[in-house]
Amino acid sequence: MLLTIRHATTYRYTAPVQYSIQQLRMTPANGSAQMVRRWHIETVGKLDVTRDAVGDKCAVALRISMEELRGKPGRNAASEAHEVVALLADVPDLWDVKMDSSPTDCAPSRFSPEGSHEPIVNFVKQLTRRPVVGVGRFTSPDVMVSQVRRGILDLIGGARPSIADPFLPNKINEGREHEIRECIGCNICISSWHDGVPVRCTQNPTAGEEWRRDWHPERFAPPASSSAVLIVGGGPAGLECATTLARRGYAVTIADSAAEFGGRLRFETRLPGLKTWGRVVDWRMGQLRERPNVNMYPASELGVDDILGLEHPHVVIATGARWTKALFSTLEFPVGELDGPAVYTPDDLAAGVVPPGPVVVFDFDNYYMAGAVAEQLAKSAGNVTYVTTAGNASAWTFMTNELPLIHRALCKANVPIHTLHRVTAFDGDAVTIADVYSGTEKRLPCRSLVIVGMRKPRDELYEALVARGTDLKDAGILGVTRIGDAFAPGAIVHAVHSGHRYAREFETVLGQAPYTRDFPV
Amino acid sequence: MLLTIRHATTYRYTAPVQYSIQQLRMTPANGSAQMVRRWHIETVGKLDVTRDAVGDKCAVALRISMEELRGKPGRNAASEAHEVVALLADVPDLWDVKMDSSPTDCAPSRFSPEGSHEPIVNFVKQLTRRPVVGVGRFTSPDVMVSQVRRGILDLIGGARPSIADPFLPNKINEGREHEIRECIGCNICISSWHDGVPVRCTQNPTAGEEWRRDWHPERFAPPASSSAVLIVGGGPAGLECATTLARRGYAVTIADSAAEFGGRLRFETRLPGLKTWGRVVDWRMGQLRERPNVNMYPASELGVDDILGLEHPHVVIATGARWTKALFSTLEFPVGELDGPAVYTPDDLAAGVVPPGPVVVFDFDNYYMAGAVAEQLAKSAGNVTYVTTAGNASAWTFMTNELPLIHRALCKANVPIHTLHRVTAFDGDAVTIADVYSGTEKRLPCRSLVIVGMRKPRDELYEALVARGTDLKDAGILGVTRIGDAFAPGAIVHAVHSGHRYAREFETVLGQAPYTRDFPV
Repeated sequence: MLLTIRHATTYRYTAPVQYSIQQLRMTPANGSAQMVRRWHIETVGKLDVTRDAVGDKCAVALRISMEELRGKPGRNAASEAHEVVALLADVPDLWDVKMDSSPTDCAPSRFSPEGSHEPIVNFVKQLTRRPVVGVGRFTSPDVMVSQVRRGILDLIGGARPSIADPFLPNKINEGREHEIRECIGCNICISSWHDGVPVRCTQNPTAGEEWRRDWHPERFAPPASSSAVLIVGGGPAGLECATTLARRGYAVTIADSAAEFGGRLRFETRLPGLKTWGRVVDWRMGQLRERPNVNMYPASELGVDDILGLEHPHVVIATGARWTKALFSTLEFPVGELDGPAVYTPDDLAAGVVPPGPVVVFDFDNYYMAGAVAEQLAKSAGNVTYVTTAGNASAWTFMTNELPLIHRALCKANVPIHTLHRVTAFDGDAVTIADVYSGTEKRLPCRSLVIVGMRKPRDELYEALVARGTDLKDAGILGVTRIGDAFAPGAIVHAVHSGHRYAREFETVLGQAPYTRDFPV
Repeated sequence: MLLTIRHATTYRYTAPVQYSIQQLRMTPANGSAQMVRRWHIETVGKLDVTRDAVGDKCAVALRISMEELRGKPGRNAASEAHEVVALLADVPDLWDVKMDSSPTDCAPSRFSPEGSHEPIVNFVKQLTRRPVVGVGRFTSPDVMVSQVRRGILDLIGGARPSIADPFLPNKINEGREHEIRECIGCNICISSWHDGVPVRCTQNPTAGEEWRRDWHPERFAPPASSSAVLIVGGGPAGLECATTLARRGYAVTIADSAAEFGGRLRFETRLPGLKTWGRVVDWRMGQLRERPNVNMYPASELGVDDILGLEHPHVVIATGARWTKALFSTLEFPVGELDGPAVYTPDDLAAGVVPPGPVVVFDFDNYYMAGAVAEQLAKSAGNVTYVTTAGNASAWTFMTNELPLIHRALCKANVPIHTLHRVTAFDGDAVTIADVYSGTEKRLPCRSLVIVGMRKPRDELYEALVARGTDLKDAGILGVTRIGDAFAPGAIVHAVHSGHRYAREFETVLGQAPYTRDFPV
């Protein structure tokens, strides 16, 4: 048994820059040596009290944030972090070392590789004989082994990787590394925590559903029939749906109009820093390729008659969503679409359009897309300006610890950022943007306007199919169902969940309520 | 029994400007007459289905947002709102009319008087024979009666006023209008809703505590002894504590160093739009003045020896908090205090200091104070610039529906707003501000810097008192307790709750847990 005393300082979310004494006329602050001594006394005291309470039934760990301390020069050692660890060296039974702020402690993959705590926590093992545990989104057994071999850590901690795959340790243990469903570092899990709602995971749709929907990540109900399912669209929803149906044992056919499966991720993984997100596709493709009950048809655009001809009793439409050019008033009333030859959406960029500059990217989607697009266009062609109705660039990425890093990436790519403004007009030479509060307008030079705003389901095939009621019946089709963005545009996590839910609930009997709930006694 | 169909369009929170067609090259939008007709058919359909379901046991109401519709010219009537109401005229049994967005529907008192829906909803009664209900933070019986007499509404709806005083209708009915604890329109209740936490009310600390703490707004446990309580400090916490102890029947003495009771509200109610908040003081002063078991001592600064001499067995310290000049790094590490002859806090302004311009107000408190101070200084002397680390001015007021209105008030007062910046230096002629993400610095002319950041308890009297352990015993003092900002600086709502809790729990026996909780079955 292990008891952990948390000594981590908790900060409100903020930009993760290194601590530095500001050029201010300051009143004298407490000396650093005095501070270290106070911590020492307090911490030893707490550890002793705890040890007395638990006796020899339980080890006592000390969890401590190292980032601020490592940034401060020490009096007798390289940093205050060195001084604290040296003073407490063998007092805790286990050192649990971490970064300080959420954006560095749980860094998004877009800006940090796995194992990114190493430069801050690498000295601890040299100053203690006690074992040291740390985290850092470890998904690769090679990186884990390397940190242990090189004397950085003794024990590998994994929070996000275990959410993405709770069986990660078992899979390593059993030599099934290729089956690990690796965390993509999108930090949707952190956003759930910031929101105070049940955890969600892009890679593992069963996370947070173990109790309320009784979804086990590795166990599935066997097939209730020999029904075959046709899935049209191989993006995140379609691939997850196919994978889970296949794991259950159903015969699955999945087709996509593109030459490669992946849907929106074919484009999005080419945006700056988002390559790791490709694991959503890779893991599922690996699962599907090794199963005999799966037929995969890339480069196969299916029309209504093709689908009728295939005679699968169940058809799932996973055709995704498209970005629109719709704009909204400050009160978010729709004011129509802003169209024209030089008005683009991310779909145009995905299709290979290179918009001539100067480019203005107008964002009221507020997740990662517009920031990533602006950064990429600025890197490839330059002369990009970013405009958002929100108070920050990619404002919702506050929830995923990406916000300050996106802001800084845009600054580095020389992208001017206009917050709290919306686009009100575009004449081909300039856009007019208006302050969302005062209405004050200004003009920005602009030859290409990229609108990253609202999406709509790409549901023409679904609508055309259900319009053929009698023909469906004649072809033996019992059900046509939309999943993922084709049903309701959302983040990748929602598409995966939607695809999983269809496959999990397919031909099963559900209770009256969609899931189990708490009720007050 | 009344069943309500909600037909309100719900928008994400945004700035409440009137809808207007933008000067954009739009693709043709749906015609307005077509839209009105679609609504008509859908709504009549829903009302009919509902009426069939409930039979004659239940009236069916229609709740509808009028703001957007009223803003759009109609084809056959003054606006689309007129058209919709005319078409549906007597179909619902009750019209429940409202504004569209949270900031206009639940407008803060700082920017809107009570009954502010009138110009939008005033036409409905002319087009229907059914009764009409509406809301608008109605607390004054005179305003309610006026709206009914003038044919605006038939029924007065009150959400916030009933949170502030659940017995409002009874008090009107029984001719006890002077006892109504009037809503101050601070919208802390709305912030609870935005946060998904139990409701809080600045005026009524029992709101949200009826079940879990068993607090009834008008019923109190009788005194358990003849103990007298001395309260030092007559701000929101002290006044609420005195009022509730007095209502329980205890002998209460309350003293304040200032000539008038009210604490922080003596200054804050003089800030633009915050006069209504004075009801926090007014209602409690009214309650205290009419009770014989209360002694009130304004203009009475009490020292330790004075308190010992007064020989009250229970002493409550409610001495409030002070604003500090402490600054923080981007990671929110403390970097010391920025002091100097031209560095001020809101306490200096409260004491009558008029800072010479140009003035920079630096806000990282992010509630109302800095925005209100900047607006006031700009109106009285001009040449004020507002700087904040957040993405919006008075960023937390997003929670209270005040944010867009504060932003607009600052624009109107010609206050330039620098978001996402923090002050890093001040040399008497200019402040240096740095972008929180990129660190890029710029200088702003500045002769006076007002820092609105962190507060600290004003707890010197408390510390001096508890240091006199034996003397306390000799004077018969059984307990010394801090409440409100003197214990933990917060919003006024927290101070009132803290004062109420002391008085409510004084000499009572509490269960093991601080409050009743839900547990899953």
